[in-house]
Amino acid sequence: MPRVGSCLGYALLDGGDTAFTIDASSVTFGPGALAEVGEHARHLGARRVALFTDRTLAALAPVAEAQRSLRAAGLDVALYDDVRVEPTDASFLAAAAFAAQGHFDAYVSVGGGSVIDTCKAALLHATYPADLLTYVNRPLGEGRPIPGPLPPHIACPTTTGTGSECTGIAIFDLRAQHAKTGIASRRLRPTLALVDPTAAATLPAGVVAASGFDVLSHALESFTARPFSARPRPDTPLARPMSQGQNPWSDLGCREALRLTGRYLTRAVADATDTEARDAMSWAATLAGIAFGNAGVHLPHAMSYAIAGLRHDFHMPGYPAPFVPHGVAVILGAPAAFRALAPQHPERHLEAAALLGADTRGVDPRDGDAIGTLLADHLTHLMRTAGIPRGLTHVGYGEVDLTALTAGTLAQARLVDNAPRPIPPDELQALFRAALTPW
Amino acid sequence: MPRVGSCLGYALLDGGDTAFTIDASSVTFGPGALAEVGEHARHLGARRVALFTDRTLAALAPVAEAQRSLRAAGLDVALYDDVRVEPTDASFLAAAAFAAQGHFDAYVSVGGGSVIDTCKAALLHATYPADLLTYVNRPLGEGRPIPGPLPPHIACPTTTGTGSECTGIAIFDLRAQHAKTGIASRRLRPTLALVDPTAAATLPAGVVAASGFDVLSHALESFTARPFSARPRPDTPLARPMSQGQNPWSDLGCREALRLTGRYLTRAVADATDTEARDAMSWAATLAGIAFGNAGVHLPHAMSYAIAGLRHDFHMPGYPAPFVPHGVAVILGAPAAFRALAPQHPERHLEAAALLGADTRGVDPRDGDAIGTLLADHLTHLMRTAGIPRGLTHVGYGEVDLTALTAGTLAQARLVDNAPRPIPPDELQALFRAALTPW
Repeated sequence: MPRVGSCLGYALLDGGDTAFTIDASSVTFGPGALAEVGEHARHLGARRVALFTDRTLAALAPVAEAQRSLRAAGLDVALYDDVRVEPTDASFLAAAAFAAQGHFDAYVSVGGGSVIDTCKAALLHATYPADLLTYVNRPLGEGRPIPGPLPPHIACPTTTGTGSECTGIAIFDLRAQHAKTGIASRRLRPTLALVDPTAAATLPAGVVAASGFDVLSHALESFTARPFSARPRPDTPLARPMSQGQNPWSDLGCREALRLTGRYLTRAVADATDTEARDAMSWAATLAGIAFGNAGVHLPHAMSYAIAGLRHDFHMPGYPAPFVPHGVAVILGAPAAFRALAPQHPERHLEAAALLGADTRGVDPRDGDAIGTLLADHLTHLMRTAGIPRGLTHVGYGEVDLTALTAGTLAQARLVDNAPRPIPPDELQALFRAALTPW
Repeated sequence: MPRVGSCLGYALLDGGDTAFTIDASSVTFGPGALAEVGEHARHLGARRVALFTDRTLAALAPVAEAQRSLRAAGLDVALYDDVRVEPTDASFLAAAAFAAQGHFDAYVSVGGGSVIDTCKAALLHATYPADLLTYVNRPLGEGRPIPGPLPPHIACPTTTGTGSECTGIAIFDLRAQHAKTGIASRRLRPTLALVDPTAAATLPAGVVAASGFDVLSHALESFTARPFSARPRPDTPLARPMSQGQNPWSDLGCREALRLTGRYLTRAVADATDTEARDAMSWAATLAGIAFGNAGVHLPHAMSYAIAGLRHDFHMPGYPAPFVPHGVAVILGAPAAFRALAPQHPERHLEAAALLGADTRGVDPRDGDAIGTLLADHLTHLMRTAGIPRGLTHVGYGEVDLTALTAGTLAQARLVDNAPRPIPPDELQALFRAALTPW
């Protein structure tokens, strides 16, 4: 019995969607959660487990802890530590070959977004072999649905950022196209996430900063995405996308993640021994992951894939190799994007600014331009404090790249469509120009 | 890597649990969601569906809508409208016999908590036949685990209260023992909940009031339950109970449900055409259901099963038969219980009172007694406004029943253990005495 009018503060329109979906994420959170991986894997029917990680992590405590737990549960474990940080089509395929040859009945990933995403891609291709582009999002891929259920996957994040453990998304760098793209399907969501904040205790400050801005962006973009009720109503509920737009469920997680990020991000970057702040960022990452898994991100993430896909010679402190870390790529475009988009939903952007700790006293809640400036200025303040590079120029871009960055962003149709309003190419190019030197 | 100290504001103790679990609830919420039941059932592999409801609802729009949708999806539908409102052991067994004879491959329930709970029990016993008490909570039942997975169950609530669509709990009246008890297992959680607020649009005021206080109690009890970290750490994560106690995840849903209940319960009872208020109570019920499915309720719910199990001659306006509706039974003991328990966590009870709309100005956040009185007084204010009976005396109890009520409550070990502190029998009896005439 659809209706027009409103529901929970959302306008319901003739022909628009009237319902939203809360998708299942199964998470255990807390110090000690990682040590439970063996019992969980055995309960999920595992006998032979593929353990995915990267070369750096392979020598560190979280991977040792996972191996110990899996073996204590009587399971056979094969380690794959060849995950490439910032995975590519080639690194996805190498991981898939390992998975296919191993005849595993369960998968465990211990690492950041690169590790968890690589594990998702590997188990998919080991289960339903196909050309890499078969399941990749259009227009770069064929966008075919995943044919059936996937084997169990327990994701154990070691960064406080990506939220990949809660989502059905896997991102990689399609080198031939100089573009980031990915696979998005509910079936790709890990069976279980074990979020142990102690696993992130030794993260370098640069990684905490970059992944923290990824959390901020997940929450801020999901909170300001096109409302679920502004999408056309699907012919069948099964066609309701994961990126369904802002909705009352995602709003709840976004608000708390924004509040925690505003309060703790700077502290978590500044002091690795500030357990309170790092725990809070770990929890904010989980909440933002659940939220964006149910709402979807929009323009700053679309811009980030172009930024991260084109240049690979910037080296962020704390990272093992030169590339633009995802969280840096995301936040570099954010001030310009939110300045432009705030007038679409002024009060919501004002609320977000306040949750992030901006001083909003005396601001007219209907003045979208003033609110956009306030939010952009507060974002750049947080970025400066956390040591984020000073604009796109500092990661290697110039006026000459604006056309390619714009085209690369427009190729991310799934994300661009989830923005609160359409962005003409000229305006998008101007946003990139503003992002060259934001302060 | 467990630790002692704190995490997200929760004290971590030596030997106490250090992690909490977010369990999967899959929900679609919004006007029109009920019409999607057929597509979802087909997608879950259904061909022959058992549709559970009660005699009153069988003649109303939501059941007609569900039947239409299921048949439009090409499914064979058998209606079971013999669900007893306030189910008993006998009515559970009759429903189970229907389920066993029908050879169904999926189940749909359209109704309040009685309907959804009966459907859970029926599909369990049709799948794994056993004596009724086999799976029932101890000490009244044997508390045996459910042996394996259950067929798909799509729960479609028509009241704004029980949250049963989000939980793995089924409650019934064990007549021979004059006691309410139930079955609790993660496996019993419905596969999918379709929460369509228009399905509750025609609810009588008395049902909105009773079920609204059930929402309030789910949120308030989950918010004040024994902290997850005060439970002993389980030997295996699989032994972590559904009633794991208050935790950062349930806190999030509880806070929003308390805020919405404080703002909208009175309006939703007073005016059936106040769609904004009724939508909000429907959403509050969903959030409180997710929260209490992950935290558990405590003393007022334990007291309610004794209250509802002993007497069956009170007739609440709006209900089809004489009995003490669950939400009434729950809230009648709540003021006395929270007055007594508030000193255990004064600031949390003060926050709850504020979220429910109490005037908390000038209250000392450390003064547990004053906060307990404030919260109790605000609850009785809300109860009076909504037409809840004036105490246990008005539903048929007197001084002579206090011993039996106390014993009946202590039998609910799962719930009593989830209270913020142990309650000696003498104190519990005094709480019941105070609940006889709370105003």
